[in-house]
Amino acid sequence: MIIEMQMNAPETTTAAILRAASARKLTANVMRNERAAQVIGIGGSIQLDQLDVPWIARVEAVHKPFMLASRELREASTVMVGDVPVGNGQPVIMAGPCVVEDRESLIAGARAAQRAGATIQRGGAFKPRTSPYSFQGLGEEGLRHLAAARDATGMPVVTEVMEPEQVELVAGYADMLQIGSRNMANFPLLKRVGKSGKPVLLKRGFAATIEEFLMSAEYILAHGNPSVVLCERGIRGFDSMFRFNLDLNAVPGLKEVSHLPVIVDPSHGTGVRSLVPRMAMAGMAAGADGLIIEVHPNPESAMCDASQTITPDTLADIHRGMMAVHAALQPIFAPDLAPVMVAAD
Amino acid sequence: MIIEMQMNAPETTTAAILRAASARKLTANVMRNERAAQVIGIGGSIQLDQLDVPWIARVEAVHKPFMLASRELREASTVMVGDVPVGNGQPVIMAGPCVVEDRESLIAGARAAQRAGATIQRGGAFKPRTSPYSFQGLGEEGLRHLAAARDATGMPVVTEVMEPEQVELVAGYADMLQIGSRNMANFPLLKRVGKSGKPVLLKRGFAATIEEFLMSAEYILAHGNPSVVLCERGIRGFDSMFRFNLDLNAVPGLKEVSHLPVIVDPSHGTGVRSLVPRMAMAGMAAGADGLIIEVHPNPESAMCDASQTITPDTLADIHRGMMAVHAALQPIFAPDLAPVMVAAD
Amino acid sequence: MIIEMQMNAPETTTAAILRAASARKLTANVMRNERAAQVIGIGGSIQLDQLDVPWIARVEAVHKPFMLASRELREASTVMVGDVPVGNGQPVIMAGPCVVEDRESLIAGARAAQRAGATIQRGGAFKPRTSPYSFQGLGEEGLRHLAAARDATGMPVVTEVMEPEQVELVAGYADMLQIGSRNMANFPLLKRVGKSGKPVLLKRGFAATIEEFLMSAEYILAHGNPSVVLCERGIRGFDSMFRFNLDLNAVPGLKEVSHLPVIVDPSHGTGVRSLVPRMAMAGMAAGADGLIIEVHPNPESAMCDASQTITPDTLADIHRGMMAVHAALQPIFAPDLAPVMVAAD
Amino acid sequence: MIIEMQMNAPETTTAAILRAASARKLTANVMRNERAAQVIGIGGSIQLDQLDVPWIARVEAVHKPFMLASRELREASTVMVGDVPVGNGQPVIMAGPCVVEDRESLIAGARAAQRAGATIQRGGAFKPRTSPYSFQGLGEEGLRHLAAARDATGMPVVTEVMEPEQVELVAGYADMLQIGSRNMANFPLLKRVGKSGKPVLLKRGFAATIEEFLMSAEYILAHGNPSVVLCERGIRGFDSMFRFNLDLNAVPGLKEVSHLPVIVDPSHGTGVRSLVPRMAMAGMAAGADGLIIEVHPNPESAMCDASQTITPDTLADIHRGMMAVHAALQPIFAPDLAPVMVAAD
Repeated sequence: MIIEMQMNAPETTTAAILRAASARKLTANVMRNERAAQVIGIGGSIQLDQLDVPWIARVEAVHKPFMLASRELREASTVMVGDVPVGNGQPVIMAGPCVVEDRESLIAGARAAQRAGATIQRGGAFKPRTSPYSFQGLGEEGLRHLAAARDATGMPVVTEVMEPEQVELVAGYADMLQIGSRNMANFPLLKRVGKSGKPVLLKRGFAATIEEFLMSAEYILAHGNPSVVLCERGIRGFDSMFRFNLDLNAVPGLKEVSHLPVIVDPSHGTGVRSLVPRMAMAGMAAGADGLIIEVHPNPESAMCDASQTITPDTLADIHRGMMAVHAALQPIFAPDLAPVMVAAD
Repeated sequence: MIIEMQMNAPETTTAAILRAASARKLTANVMRNERAAQVIGIGGSIQLDQLDVPWIARVEAVHKPFMLASRELREASTVMVGDVPVGNGQPVIMAGPCVVEDRESLIAGARAAQRAGATIQRGGAFKPRTSPYSFQGLGEEGLRHLAAARDATGMPVVTEVMEPEQVELVAGYADMLQIGSRNMANFPLLKRVGKSGKPVLLKRGFAATIEEFLMSAEYILAHGNPSVVLCERGIRGFDSMFRFNLDLNAVPGLKEVSHLPVIVDPSHGTGVRSLVPRMAMAGMAAGADGLIIEVHPNPESAMCDASQTITPDTLADIHRGMMAVHAALQPIFAPDLAPVMVAAD
Repeated sequence: MIIEMQMNAPETTTAAILRAASARKLTANVMRNERAAQVIGIGGSIQLDQLDVPWIARVEAVHKPFMLASRELREASTVMVGDVPVGNGQPVIMAGPCVVEDRESLIAGARAAQRAGATIQRGGAFKPRTSPYSFQGLGEEGLRHLAAARDATGMPVVTEVMEPEQVELVAGYADMLQIGSRNMANFPLLKRVGKSGKPVLLKRGFAATIEEFLMSAEYILAHGNPSVVLCERGIRGFDSMFRFNLDLNAVPGLKEVSHLPVIVDPSHGTGVRSLVPRMAMAGMAAGADGLIIEVHPNPESAMCDASQTITPDTLADIHRGMMAVHAALQPIFAPDLAPVMVAAD
Repeated sequence: MIIEMQMNAPETTTAAILRAASARKLTANVMRNERAAQVIGIGGSIQLDQLDVPWIARVEAVHKPFMLASRELREASTVMVGDVPVGNGQPVIMAGPCVVEDRESLIAGARAAQRAGATIQRGGAFKPRTSPYSFQGLGEEGLRHLAAARDATGMPVVTEVMEPEQVELVAGYADMLQIGSRNMANFPLLKRVGKSGKPVLLKRGFAATIEEFLMSAEYILAHGNPSVVLCERGIRGFDSMFRFNLDLNAVPGLKEVSHLPVIVDPSHGTGVRSLVPRMAMAGMAAGADGLIIEVHPNPESAMCDASQTITPDTLADIHRGMMAVHAALQPIFAPDLAPVMVAAD
């Protein structure tokens, strides 16, 4: 059930509704719409006519199952990652190596990526690897290197968290918590990052439907965290020419039903370095709010995902193209874009 | 086996090679590379050292199985559809209704599409329908209406041919023959359009790999027809939100290994009207040479595919966006684009 | 619209209904149910209350789109292939090489397959090949060899027909016409075999849904041919360990909604010789009416599909297992099986 | 690297090899082959010629990446669940409700399932649910009910564990830990159950390849737990007639490369009650070691997965059919089956 309050509704009214939900043991979350009015999402139904609650602007009893993530709640969101807005019509690039290797090369790479146009630093400290015999990442040492890179460049850091117990540790270093594709439906982990207070980058499971993807986002939102960025990263396909099949239908598909920002990962989405630039452009043209890309000063020597990693020079081309596509299409297809800021409700 | 001749090689040398292939009962096709030198593709191997053949510039014994369609033969092709070039760096829109309904509305729709930026007219006279009880198209009467629309607008016409026996009939009216997705591996039909003398629009089978797609193009090329345009039109996916999953990875994937022009069909590729504009833009940003789109003056009343058909007004936005994306990205990602013309060898 | 007549309904009543359908330009087909009463399937609706038609037992105005193929029309069908019944509770094996190579080896292989338990001979004369440079089959010479093998063994012959113009030629030699997976939605071909008077083996398109598969069967039935056997032969999957993914869900899925016999092709369905026996058993346990298997006296030397072809010895094991599974499960899961014979209405 | 010792090799030799591996910081696991000789799997390479180690029977330097799970290590394994062997040629049924609802109905259902032939009790206490607003299971209370059902029936209990922190709690009640499909690549969870000392039922991710599935099993084995049972439970497909597509190719596919027992879940694998019996039979005929099935005394009233849940009566038919299929096929296709027991090395 979605209840939208009038602009100047007093806190007491909202509080009454929350008490009614609590009495029925229903989850209830308060967010704000694009006009900054409060919107309450309740995981079930309460009987409003038995409450003395004026100031209600709109009630939706029938709505998408991903109530808090839906456009029925709000038109469009901006998520702050450190001081970098994602989703406000200013396209963003998150870039860095697949895995953090050592401090010096990480910082050198971060500076090169920043010069090429990146504004958020990515890199793995805890790595999900298919084989138990593969390098599993540097762990907390990797987190410290990422923090050092942030000190050096000023770029906020996004890095993956793989299990509920790690959330606090990773949140202590990172500016944004990444949930990997294989963990999209790891519900205990989603609940924990929902309580972390940090923005979350949620990658789509590689065989998840749009609705399943948004239900996973809903877990995070329903546990109190409004700052979720969605990431399309390729689905499983039948053609061995590609490692995964970047599914750009998901970009306008998500935008049509959800207010959350959407970015695209053409690196994992194809697994093929030569296809990354054009698929990055396609992602932006499809309406994405940004890109996440694996970049390494010397891709061939990268410790993982070498075949899909590009150079900073290629990243500079991608940045130039991204801004050009955005400038070309925003006036035609999204002239009214003016989403609210999400953070610090 | 691919044999590239020197620029000024005499005809007698080429003829000797063709005779040697013929003696071994191998197919042999002569095409031209981007410098207009002759390139001979032979469906097998001949022993060059036993022939007196100077003037050979390059021999590739090991190459892609789709020899004639591969970039090993030529960099990039332009296919002439009537007087409209496809693939020469000038993006093109093919537009029209799913099925030809009657002459007046077809001509009215064609004029509206032309005003919106289309330069090639599409429309089905023979329609492959899942149900034997559905309307199967007007047949030859539909072809006559398409010819009338061409008279009215000057736009060349592309329309589907479904069986070998129909090729001559359809080629008598149309400027380009379309092979539908369900017929991509209808080899007798591919052979026949290979001998038709008309350019061919080959749609990708909805579960075909890139290599299978190009092998189907190879059938047409190997039967003597160099004028093939490839069309990505969506693959089968697992999410019922979309009718098909437009697979834009195929665009740079095809461009990387083939010289043939590639267009994108966001109408069938999504099956959802509201997703067509953004996916059209994404297709262009991925590097496509154009679009094919279902347009109807009154989409809701269209006799088939109503849910994915757009209005001429939306088409005008798409045309504006297409030109803007092309102008933005060509200088960055395809600065050297200068393919040879294919027709009339 | 499905109209079931009473057992002893006079011909005049049926004729009146057919005239009413014809007057409205609707297709109309007469078949028999399992009690041998006539059932009329009409591709649309007629107004029965305006006709003087007693003797009607049942009318279904709302039914599956594959009316003639559905269980709403009849419980279960038996299709006669020569003198071999398919679908009457007697499991059947169709066996032979991928492609007919020469007369002697074909006959030797047929005899070996017959000794191993096969009762229908398969083998390709016209072969759909992905590459235009691959061997395309012996053509009519291959058909003559197949006829010679039938003379030698008495086994009826099933072989593929690839285009409408070939139907008469192939029907002149074969006892059953095979429509390959790539042609499942080749509607002109389906119409033509619908008029051929020969039973048809319709293979499922490798990305076709159950409903699409049955709609293709409906094309054949609606053009006058009641003798259709369905074949599950593997769908496109994502795991390169298998060439295709035999989809056994289709077997009980088809049986639940259709009366047509269903056989399973574990050779193409896996592409892996070592998996053929167990998947053949699984197909039978899923409820199939038989198997079609690629067998060659010397699989390694087979001209095509060598990697999925088994020996006659393995076929003998499969036959033994097939009969054992059938005997074990029929009493538990299909005790009432007693379908009518289809042919010669 | 796989090192197989001779039958009577002294402990000192094995110890020397383990020290060498440890010195190089490589994982090393000791298991036994079907003749009870020790086999050492090392996650990397050691230089045997620099050690004084006689008694070595076989060394495999090149092997499958899932070394410990591969048939290169051992022919076939039996896993003990409580006192019930899985994988020793005695087919097994695990049955119970999707989710534990209350103690009385759980026990009544368990008794009914036991009478129908089940020997292991399943049921969810912690449930992964797509929606944060759905019932998430009774938690520890559900575990206590499961333990009570075991007391009542004597059947060992398998139940799902969703996060590393829960492993100890769940292992305190259950006889076997289930890893759900969505957690197949939850590597921290795999590591933790690898150290739990309890047998593990590992369900295949619904878009995982055979190799990825076995690499996840390898995580458990490499962390010290030899008792892993694999479960095929359906992959994502394109046909909305089925919820998932039970992929029986996986059964002989897994058996060909791995020694681990394999069971099949026709309930989740189809999502359709009417298809469960035949797909269960097909799974057994494909070579599975057993079944896991959702059963409820009153399926329509089940709190989750009602549409795929069967009655105890249907389960009795399935049990009868399972034993019949096994008896029919074991002599033909697996005459030598005699795997070693795994537990308590």
